[in-house]
Amino acid sequence: MNRAIEAVFREHGEGGVQMPPKVYITFPTGDFRTMPAFLPAMDIAGVKIVNVHPGNREHGLPTVMALTILIDPESGVPRAVLNATSLTDMRTGAAGAVAAKFLSPKREVTVGVIGSGRQAEAQVRALAEELRITRIRFWSREEKNAEVLASRFREFDASASGLERACDADVVITTTPSREPLVQDGWIHAGTHINAIGADAPGKEELDPRILLRARVFVDDMAQAVHSGEVNVPIARGLFSPDQIAGTLGEVVTGRKRRERKEEITVFDSTGLAIQDLAIARLALEGAEWIELPFP
Amino acid sequence: MNRAIEAVFREHGEGGVQMPPKVYITFPTGDFRTMPAFLPAMDIAGVKIVNVHPGNREHGLPTVMALTILIDPESGVPRAVLNATSLTDMRTGAAGAVAAKFLSPKREVTVGVIGSGRQAEAQVRALAEELRITRIRFWSREEKNAEVLASRFREFDASASGLERACDADVVITTTPSREPLVQDGWIHAGTHINAIGADAPGKEELDPRILLRARVFVDDMAQAVHSGEVNVPIARGLFSPDQIAGTLGEVVTGRKRRERKEEITVFDSTGLAIQDLAIARLALEGAEWIELPFP
Repeated sequence: MNRAIEAVFREHGEGGVQMPPKVYITFPTGDFRTMPAFLPAMDIAGVKIVNVHPGNREHGLPTVMALTILIDPESGVPRAVLNATSLTDMRTGAAGAVAAKFLSPKREVTVGVIGSGRQAEAQVRALAEELRITRIRFWSREEKNAEVLASRFREFDASASGLERACDADVVITTTPSREPLVQDGWIHAGTHINAIGADAPGKEELDPRILLRARVFVDDMAQAVHSGEVNVPIARGLFSPDQIAGTLGEVVTGRKRRERKEEITVFDSTGLAIQDLAIARLALEGAEWIELPFP
Repeated sequence: MNRAIEAVFREHGEGGVQMPPKVYITFPTGDFRTMPAFLPAMDIAGVKIVNVHPGNREHGLPTVMALTILIDPESGVPRAVLNATSLTDMRTGAAGAVAAKFLSPKREVTVGVIGSGRQAEAQVRALAEELRITRIRFWSREEKNAEVLASRFREFDASASGLERACDADVVITTTPSREPLVQDGWIHAGTHINAIGADAPGKEELDPRILLRARVFVDDMAQAVHSGEVNVPIARGLFSPDQIAGTLGEVVTGRKRRERKEEITVFDSTGLAIQDLAIARLALEGAEWIELPFP
């Protein structure tokens, strides 16, 4: 899966995709986003439709649910409608893994994970395919949740920990819906790579903006990141500027941009791209054995 | 059905809907359009996805195929995925019927139909619910097609005819994919109402632009019409200006705009709105008996 996601970022880096900005529709209790795209080199096109309703857990429903519709470019015929709720988790995990593969200066890493939801697990599963993980520390507002998650990764010496200790790692992954910085600048040591995953809408942020100022910051898509990624709040407040973004993950994958020094900090700001959704939907459609699509 | 479509135009006229512009993805052999919307007053939200592949008939497929996904505004759960190919024809027919109901100065009308495809039939079926039709003349490039269509409307004294004769009618309906004017200015008599349905993409037009200059022109949505409706080519060529558009069908339905004189010509420029798709999808979902959804 990571290779398929790496391939779409390569296409993105080479400018070979059509991917208009996500379209947002807002409800009193949430929103939904429509994400159309076309990847000519892979002959796949379609749309992902995904909601975000933060209050859903109280009603026993996932906060985020998604459908992907695949369309045949040649004829326009709808080829498939897929439940993309799990696929969304997986493709986001894979993007983080690809970012860490290219941007972490170490192949053998300690990992700190902030947040204990589905995305925390997806990030670790995908990362383990790219780097050798020697230790994982999970932090959650509810320590119990961190412990439960850690119990699923015994093979990586996983445990629950405090927030600051979790940030003392070679790869730090943030996966919360936070609207204020959780990760303080002083906690991040030289050479760390950070996957900033949680911020995906205006107003969300997880990192102390001073981290961005001393880091080399890569994004998945420039327009989406400025609108709704980790950088959106610092940019809106004048603390950070789009000019300070080093490049896109696509540019990293194609080799045009890279980590420059071993001791610098790198950040990958992920908002989630429609082309990732198309690529993983096709893997699912082709019957990849490791993909299950439980509803919802 | 016409009442449901009239109701969504009323909501549109009152500014009570969220409907971002259609998003186009282009293929070598066609395109697809993604159309999200939310109608709070009716508690419906969703997306229509529709392709246009002009070469499909050679391969035994419809040119246009559509899916509509309905989403629950409260929770974001996908409520239904509907085959919207026939629904698209029907909701477009209904919009024309609503326009003619409000803009035709006569309740008893002769009708001229330019084009003999699915939309020609849908327009007449819906119009017959609003006005008393005393005669229909169908014109098609292939006279045989006009004759076949006429045979389905014997109760309205329907026949195939020449193009100029078809335009000599109280209500003229254009439903072709033409990229040059078919209907000449001199053929349209005082007091005619025209439903200009065919033009739905940049470069398409069916009417001599001089008709627009002497008519009162209404559109379904201002931005969509300027981009891709009957007015798009005359505007691009500087022959017509968005300022000359009299208003939207929503403004007509709410009573803020109207035909001013019995002898003037009125034009309704239809591009097709996502809110129409949502309304008719809900009718289908509620099990309206007269709706069938054959595939494709």
